[in-house]
Amino acid sequence: MENKEKAAHIQKKMYDKDWFSQWLGIECIDSGAGYSKLKMVVRKEMLNGFGIAHGGITYSLADSALAFASNSHGRMAVSIETSISHTESLVEGDIIIAEAEELSLSNKIGVYQIKVSKPDHKVVALFKGTVYRTGKEWFPGSSTSPIKN
Amino acid sequence: MENKEKAAHIQKKMYDKDWFSQWLGIECIDSGAGYSKLKMVVRKEMLNGFGIAHGGITYSLADSALAFASNSHGRMAVSIETSISHTESLVEGDIIIAEAEELSLSNKIGVYQIKVSKPDHKVVALFKGTVYRTGKEWFPGSSTSPIKN
Amino acid sequence: MENKEKAAHIQKKMYDKDWFSQWLGIECIDSGAGYSKLKMVVRKEMLNGFGIAHGGITYSLADSALAFASNSHGRMAVSIETSISHTESLVEGDIIIAEAEELSLSNKIGVYQIKVSKPDHKVVALFKGTVYRTGKEWFPGSSTSPIKN
Amino acid sequence: MENKEKAAHIQKKMYDKDWFSQWLGIECIDSGAGYSKLKMVVRKEMLNGFGIAHGGITYSLADSALAFASNSHGRMAVSIETSISHTESLVEGDIIIAEAEELSLSNKIGVYQIKVSKPDHKVVALFKGTVYRTGKEWFPGSSTSPIKN
Repeated sequence: MENKEKAAHIQKKMYDKDWFSQWLGIECIDSGAGYSKLKMVVRKEMLNGFGIAHGGITYSLADSALAFASNSHGRMAVSIETSISHTESLVEGDIIIAEAEELSLSNKIGVYQIKVSKPDHKVVALFKGTVYRTGKEWFPGSSTSPIKN
Repeated sequence: MENKEKAAHIQKKMYDKDWFSQWLGIECIDSGAGYSKLKMVVRKEMLNGFGIAHGGITYSLADSALAFASNSHGRMAVSIETSISHTESLVEGDIIIAEAEELSLSNKIGVYQIKVSKPDHKVVALFKGTVYRTGKEWFPGSSTSPIKN
Repeated sequence: MENKEKAAHIQKKMYDKDWFSQWLGIECIDSGAGYSKLKMVVRKEMLNGFGIAHGGITYSLADSALAFASNSHGRMAVSIETSISHTESLVEGDIIIAEAEELSLSNKIGVYQIKVSKPDHKVVALFKGTVYRTGKEWFPGSSTSPIKN
Repeated sequence: MENKEKAAHIQKKMYDKDWFSQWLGIECIDSGAGYSKLKMVVRKEMLNGFGIAHGGITYSLADSALAFASNSHGRMAVSIETSISHTESLVEGDIIIAEAEELSLSNKIGVYQIKVSKPDHKVVALFKGTVYRTGKEWFPGSSTSPIKN
């Protein structure tokens, strides 16, 4: 299986049972080895007491992007530590796009940056995530388990 | 207005319009100056593709606790940077409790730790949040705007 | 070997070859299982262009506390991700104390909070550190490798 | 004064009194608006008990890059919260380069990513820093105080 195809496969497998990402209305725009791009729309029930999107909404979108990107190589990966800076407020109807970039990948640890932005490329949140790569494979026998960096 | 009473007042005012915290089913157990304690139950639609609670769920609960605790002094506060470590998986039906502790408070910046745990005190997530304290008051004319540390 | 004795042993072994902690003038005040307490004095060559202690100084002290606390159980541990909030400026001659608290410990991952404060307990920095616990032992054959939380 | 010239001016002014950056042997390779690039060599007195560079060394280099980049616009900026992932070990003699990228800039808050890498571009540490932009100018009367994003 090619890298991009495998990534799409795993992402679909994860997404199909990811009830919360589905509730958020997340749409998978693109995927690849160490990569994922997701999109969603801010709805009324996602707002907090200030009338803007709850911090948990952008975090959740970015965290899904982290999960898809870090599992894309074929080995199951779990989040260890994540951080997010909210740089811009969001209101109902805003469209947001999360794009994951793999900053570093070793045998056990992967580090990712996820930028969340509006369609006009205005950055609304910056997320950094560190994952632990377990020994379990998504498709036993087929993984190439790359190590980069 | 006493500190504890004021904190409860502000928390109620925030919560009443916080549609996402309501969707999460968050229950406000306690509040005080620089303090808040929240509770919720993990539901099926909060699970991810691994069948465990999406990282965004514990983050969102902790982020609400941060908002309530950091706004409790009377001045509006906004999150600048937050980080979370997920230390334990959660399944459907799990009860989780978030408790905020104010680690530092200056005129402009507040730092909080929020521990998310199960009723048996097992820690499931550790959250650190830094807020910027704006000049806006929740109840203009009544705030004491304490500075600690 | 008792836990506290073992922790002191490992800390001494690490410190004796830790040239940078020695340059910082770090003094080990206390240690224990998952615990360490360190002290140092801010010197002129530790200041930055604002005439206050460089952020790297408090970070380094806290990072040494993280290393000593997380290695204290007998298994070698390496830092994965750390964060620090600088809440108070420091000038030449200031004494600072770092105290590590183990927030969570599993087979592979440990999470620690380190508070850096002045002798009057004013908090000057708040540090959170996540470590990966390797399979290597400090004293092969003697470790109990506890798992908490 | 042009942006790049002003940045170089401020960086020089900061560096000339930054005793710790000088002790580290930091060399300023490049600077610009929201940008800085620094270089240093790992010396024996920078090693920890494992015989590799203490985490405080890469942190300090990255923190200096944050200070230079975030002050470059003309307004004094102070670090609020920083995080670092150490992805690769360093030994005596290793050359490391830190390059700052401005991810977001508003009136009060700036967010920066600093990559620390070896000359062969291998990433050894990933740093994210958030600063608070004070109202003080480096050169009163001359600043343009840009707001981006």
